[in-house]
Amino acid sequence: MAVLGAGSWGTVFAKIAADAAARSEREGGAGWSVTLWGRDPKVIEHLRATGVNDRYFPTVRLPANLGYEADARRALEGADVVVLAIPAQALREQLTALADAVPADAVLVSLAKGLERGTGLRMSEVIAQAIPGAAGRTAVVSGPNLAREIIQEQPTASVVAAASAEVAGKVSRICATDYFRPYTSADVVGVEIGGLVKNVIALCVGMCEGRDLGDNSKASIMTRGLAETSRLALALGGRHETMAGLAGMGDLVATCSSPLSRNHTAGRLLGTGLSEAEVSARMTQTAEGIKSAPVVLELAREHGVEMPIVEGVVAVLSGAVSVDQLQPMLLRRKLKAETPHVS
Amino acid sequence: MAVLGAGSWGTVFAKIAADAAARSEREGGAGWSVTLWGRDPKVIEHLRATGVNDRYFPTVRLPANLGYEADARRALEGADVVVLAIPAQALREQLTALADAVPADAVLVSLAKGLERGTGLRMSEVIAQAIPGAAGRTAVVSGPNLAREIIQEQPTASVVAAASAEVAGKVSRICATDYFRPYTSADVVGVEIGGLVKNVIALCVGMCEGRDLGDNSKASIMTRGLAETSRLALALGGRHETMAGLAGMGDLVATCSSPLSRNHTAGRLLGTGLSEAEVSARMTQTAEGIKSAPVVLELAREHGVEMPIVEGVVAVLSGAVSVDQLQPMLLRRKLKAETPHVS
Repeated sequence: MAVLGAGSWGTVFAKIAADAAARSEREGGAGWSVTLWGRDPKVIEHLRATGVNDRYFPTVRLPANLGYEADARRALEGADVVVLAIPAQALREQLTALADAVPADAVLVSLAKGLERGTGLRMSEVIAQAIPGAAGRTAVVSGPNLAREIIQEQPTASVVAAASAEVAGKVSRICATDYFRPYTSADVVGVEIGGLVKNVIALCVGMCEGRDLGDNSKASIMTRGLAETSRLALALGGRHETMAGLAGMGDLVATCSSPLSRNHTAGRLLGTGLSEAEVSARMTQTAEGIKSAPVVLELAREHGVEMPIVEGVVAVLSGAVSVDQLQPMLLRRKLKAETPHVS
Repeated sequence: MAVLGAGSWGTVFAKIAADAAARSEREGGAGWSVTLWGRDPKVIEHLRATGVNDRYFPTVRLPANLGYEADARRALEGADVVVLAIPAQALREQLTALADAVPADAVLVSLAKGLERGTGLRMSEVIAQAIPGAAGRTAVVSGPNLAREIIQEQPTASVVAAASAEVAGKVSRICATDYFRPYTSADVVGVEIGGLVKNVIALCVGMCEGRDLGDNSKASIMTRGLAETSRLALALGGRHETMAGLAGMGDLVATCSSPLSRNHTAGRLLGTGLSEAEVSARMTQTAEGIKSAPVVLELAREHGVEMPIVEGVVAVLSGAVSVDQLQPMLLRRKLKAETPHVS
């Protein structure tokens, strides 16, 4: 198994897979090797020497059975499973450059969350274009999965979605540990949409917090935010159960509750009145929601789906409205029915 | 309009209704009087003298157009709308005693959340039994409505459900203010089930917190908790949209996020290893979830609905399992599908 990308989620997923392999062997089953590739040779060298990813988890010793590789082509050699933990906007370029090195029948696992700028494509769609024939053997993993909690082995559930039950089953087996519990799903679209729109909703919840709004307001934004996310997912062929599940509601609630979430933090800074440029300058890691928001809105418009919260966030990011103007836009609409009476 | 019960939610709702009346008059519409009744004459006397409910909101001056009454029968005289802010287990007794004083065509508004012990009835059902003919003119109000945030006029949305569109519309008009935004709903059952089961789920989320579990675990419990709540609501005739809405997901998320929630606090104390009796002794206000949990479980069993989280909470409350045993019960079940592949 090769994990491409030694960022926060790539590092954690590599640990999960290595721990799962050790558990499988302990229980008398098959084992597998896990190799983590990162772009920066110095980081890989340090990982190899110490087992520590200093940038993201300076206090955590990664499992001894996890290997490291600075050469992506070597990491991919003979890999059965290729995990893609590469940022959304870099995925196509990096994957295209390596396409010929990905073994012909390898299962591809997408961890990135976002829509490609320009094309509006989901990550599984980008993978299918970069690697011909990959669609049938691609899985996506998403859920309430804050990396810093999982690295501490806090109990976590997640969703592994693939069009094929066999692929979903295979990927879930190689990431099942005592602390990480994967559920399979047939709904790739729903899982991807849940994972990417939640970043935009988290920006809005962060903005509420930046304006000192309380839990009533934040819970309303999460609820309405999931409702508009579900409308988009359904329009694209996703399923309702997914949105009510771990990769929909679960991921949204975890992201919006956690002070560790980058999108939440970025929203909070926007809420205090900083501009998008000022917020980006203050943060060391990307808030994916800032990049995704306009692309999500475009996709929603193409499919005739109303997404008032995403629209509001885009308006704040572009400087068209202030956060103070956003609140009445979202909360003071005309009285209407939530579960209508049938006349 | 008479509001019976000067506890935290009764006091807040009386303020909302008085502010709504003032707004309606300002905008050239009809006004209405609002009278708050409380059981303790001293509290009412203090309220009349100062406009302050010392026990719950010592720093808040209630609106000048709100009246107070120590005699329930006087409060009910000529009332068009009777708001019931009486604890779940006391509602039948108090309402039966006053039944002859409730004007014949008055709309009844239920704010209590819980199931009656012994009968397993929802509050709207108790009202229908205590006041013959009330079923058609009863509304329930529920949503992400932490009282201490609303009293500070933090923007809040809520759901007003009634079998009749006319009743739901009337009640929502008399509680619409700049900071409180009611949506109507036809689904009384779903709104009531959402409002009461969330207290039990909040106990479980609190327990996670008491064991130092992070946002991944808590978000998973909320997600799975809403799923089992929805199964119960649907079995009783409730609707799916309600559970995905403000009175379902919204109320659950607000309650589970807030350090102000009694159920959440009680769960946290249970999570640190205290027994039910020790927790109850430490808290000045009731945690409704502790009383409701066994009654919810009984109702679920009667209808053949599986509710593993409620079951786990009941087992902890009865002392049958410890909180440490609960965690693996909930998170380490067999690998399975969330959104299944169709074979």
